[in-house]
Amino acid sequence: MRRTVLIASLFLIGHSLFAQNEDSLFIRRLADEVLVNGKAYDNLYDLTKNVGARLAGSPGMVKAEQWGLKTIQKSGSDKAWLQECMVPHWVRGGQDKAEATYNGSSKKSLDVTALGNSEGSGPKGVTADVIEVKSFDDLESKKDQIKGKIVFYNYHFNPTFVQTFRSYGDAVRYRGAGPSRASKYGAVGVIVRSMTHSTDNVPHTGSTSYDPAYPKIPAVAIGLKDADWLSTQLQKAPVKVSMTTYGHFLPDTIGHNVIGELTGSEFPNEYITVGGHLDSWDLAEGAHDDGAGITQTIEILRAFKALGYKPRHTIRFVLFMNEENGMRGGAKYAEEAKANNEKHIFGLESDAGGFTPRGFSFGGKPEQLEKAKSWVPLFYPYGVYEVTRGGGGADVSPLAGLGAAVSELSPDSQRYFDYHHARNDVFENVNKRELELGAINMAAFIYLVDKYGL
Amino acid sequence: MRRTVLIASLFLIGHSLFAQNEDSLFIRRLADEVLVNGKAYDNLYDLTKNVGARLAGSPGMVKAEQWGLKTIQKSGSDKAWLQECMVPHWVRGGQDKAEATYNGSSKKSLDVTALGNSEGSGPKGVTADVIEVKSFDDLESKKDQIKGKIVFYNYHFNPTFVQTFRSYGDAVRYRGAGPSRASKYGAVGVIVRSMTHSTDNVPHTGSTSYDPAYPKIPAVAIGLKDADWLSTQLQKAPVKVSMTTYGHFLPDTIGHNVIGELTGSEFPNEYITVGGHLDSWDLAEGAHDDGAGITQTIEILRAFKALGYKPRHTIRFVLFMNEENGMRGGAKYAEEAKANNEKHIFGLESDAGGFTPRGFSFGGKPEQLEKAKSWVPLFYPYGVYEVTRGGGGADVSPLAGLGAAVSELSPDSQRYFDYHHARNDVFENVNKRELELGAINMAAFIYLVDKYGL
Repeated sequence: MRRTVLIASLFLIGHSLFAQNEDSLFIRRLADEVLVNGKAYDNLYDLTKNVGARLAGSPGMVKAEQWGLKTIQKSGSDKAWLQECMVPHWVRGGQDKAEATYNGSSKKSLDVTALGNSEGSGPKGVTADVIEVKSFDDLESKKDQIKGKIVFYNYHFNPTFVQTFRSYGDAVRYRGAGPSRASKYGAVGVIVRSMTHSTDNVPHTGSTSYDPAYPKIPAVAIGLKDADWLSTQLQKAPVKVSMTTYGHFLPDTIGHNVIGELTGSEFPNEYITVGGHLDSWDLAEGAHDDGAGITQTIEILRAFKALGYKPRHTIRFVLFMNEENGMRGGAKYAEEAKANNEKHIFGLESDAGGFTPRGFSFGGKPEQLEKAKSWVPLFYPYGVYEVTRGGGGADVSPLAGLGAAVSELSPDSQRYFDYHHARNDVFENVNKRELELGAINMAAFIYLVDKYGL
Repeated sequence: MRRTVLIASLFLIGHSLFAQNEDSLFIRRLADEVLVNGKAYDNLYDLTKNVGARLAGSPGMVKAEQWGLKTIQKSGSDKAWLQECMVPHWVRGGQDKAEATYNGSSKKSLDVTALGNSEGSGPKGVTADVIEVKSFDDLESKKDQIKGKIVFYNYHFNPTFVQTFRSYGDAVRYRGAGPSRASKYGAVGVIVRSMTHSTDNVPHTGSTSYDPAYPKIPAVAIGLKDADWLSTQLQKAPVKVSMTTYGHFLPDTIGHNVIGELTGSEFPNEYITVGGHLDSWDLAEGAHDDGAGITQTIEILRAFKALGYKPRHTIRFVLFMNEENGMRGGAKYAEEAKANNEKHIFGLESDAGGFTPRGFSFGGKPEQLEKAKSWVPLFYPYGVYEVTRGGGGADVSPLAGLGAAVSELSPDSQRYFDYHHARNDVFENVNKRELELGAINMAAFIYLVDKYGL
């Protein structure tokens, strides 16, 4: 009995070692292809510098869709197409401005950006005394002093969370719900401390969402140095701020997910999806958010083709539209998949910046998570040390409703919020090799799911 | 019997869980202290902007030593002093220049920097035809064509090594030994492709070392874009280069290691050393190399004091002098330790940049390595996922000769050689939180060695 078990074990070990070896060799070839012949960085240059900002509904969106289709085709897809979806069409409408009057009659211009989806003040602007609140509890305790004021949410990004996405998750409610909660008590405008650990003064936009029960008041984010300055001034004497913003919605318009496909040789009707989002905020090049995910997605396609890899399942390379202020593209993709009765087994996304990869978060059944974890030794040489229980990215998450496991690349998060939704999210702040290593690990993950299933 | 084992196991698990919990709580306090009240980033600003470049022997070195002593004292050392050591005194001596004449009479200025320790051409310069070699083998095969020429070592940083220090280890011999190997065959000058994966054209210096058997010919490093351009031109037609450099040695001079101490409460005569190197190349602020290690070292001292931590062993915080072009400081420190019969148990260094930490390399006995590995779960929340067999940094390595275990922080290596020994190694390229996370993991490691020994 013992001997039989021993032999069986040796056989299993032998088999598994052989498979691991074959896999590690293929992943090494993938890595060499990306590190030596990679196009992700050049494509990112092209997308950020020649297309630029590409918010849903904007002319930049249309240009980006055409760029995406052409680049996917050029990278070797078996087929490629645009998948139509209606998208919201918010425009900034003008140059956001804010000026503080302090210390009697001294003036200081503040570096601000209107929150995405916010309603502008119009050219007249809004001028009012500022009241600082540190939190929603603080707002509630001051609710009788809010009327006619501009509420300044000075909630700090928590420095003690090592994973900066936790600081974001903690602070982002002030951007999302802050304007309407202030409006409820009669505020006429809102200034939100930017969601960042940065050491500069660059303001960070991002979606806000109004509660229809209250007036839609103008809302801006302010850079950290100006936020600290404003807080200090308010401790000394009243500060009045004049802010002028022009944001508004135009009618919904037509946008598209851009989809490329490598058709599966054994299971053409079973789908693996990998993607990022093609739209960006209007004020930046969207290099980390999410030019990185876009160019990594296309790089995986290019590398598979370059190595002559024939997938068993159909792999879809998807550039999703409108993640930033509506997530209509991700919803549309899942909706059509459902309508077409498609069988989706896996959705993988990169939307946390083109930084050095450290892991994958994974949402699926416990045994699927265990299987994914068993592959970590194969990722390890390329910097991914763990697969952790979590979710997929925003755009692939709806595929979970169709029974797919979903995942997202977890790059190192320390620098992400230095650039997130801000004008400094530019090509120059992306490192070529960090971007490539993300693509390599994602390609390896797709390869393993394609080969072994989940 | 079984029951006894079970009870013993439970006891051990209980004890170990309790200790781990106590340790993880203390490390959490350390982390909060560094992330909330950290001074490493401000100190780095001060060192890079107000002291600046600080090559051994230079006025910047003297200024840096005074800065180091003052900053260590201010950060709460029980005592602090300068440890004298003689250092080499190489000076660049002037503005390095190189100009190519190609395509008949077209001219192009090349972005070059003289190699550290190299002998300049003097104001007359050196003008000669360039011969490109791809490797030392290539040099040998062309040895009859070398006489009177400038040899251009165009050996590429290998992109397929994921750990960039491997690419450096592979390529650096052309900088170190290239000039004399070319001189042996009658070359009059050397141009070395910079040791970097960067996408810019910034040249990278670093030490070269002449073989006394051959004439000391001038030697420069060239930026990658210029290197590629030169290689392309040479395929078309001969290229002549005029290069002018002024490097030379002045007599050895007095430099210092800067040492601060927290005296041990139980084992004052047993030492734990943590450090980085205070000197930098003359052409940059030395922010990553090694202002990061210096300010992390001082931050560990500051955080220990802020938390009222009383170490059992004496902890030395050492800012080593002359790592870049002589390593005299590290040698001197070990030499004095030996002369004083000091018992050194551990030496930890940070000299691989202020990037997000990923691990520690460790040199010591197998059982010491196992012990250090058992602490990884305590580092894990702060980004260090592994302790691997390897060495300490250059300055603490001599302590191994005294029986100490040695180690070095392993930050993510992708961006390091973008800045290494180049004029863009400036404060602005260091991220505050990445720097702090390095200090946190180092502090945790020192704490664990102090508490449990090795």
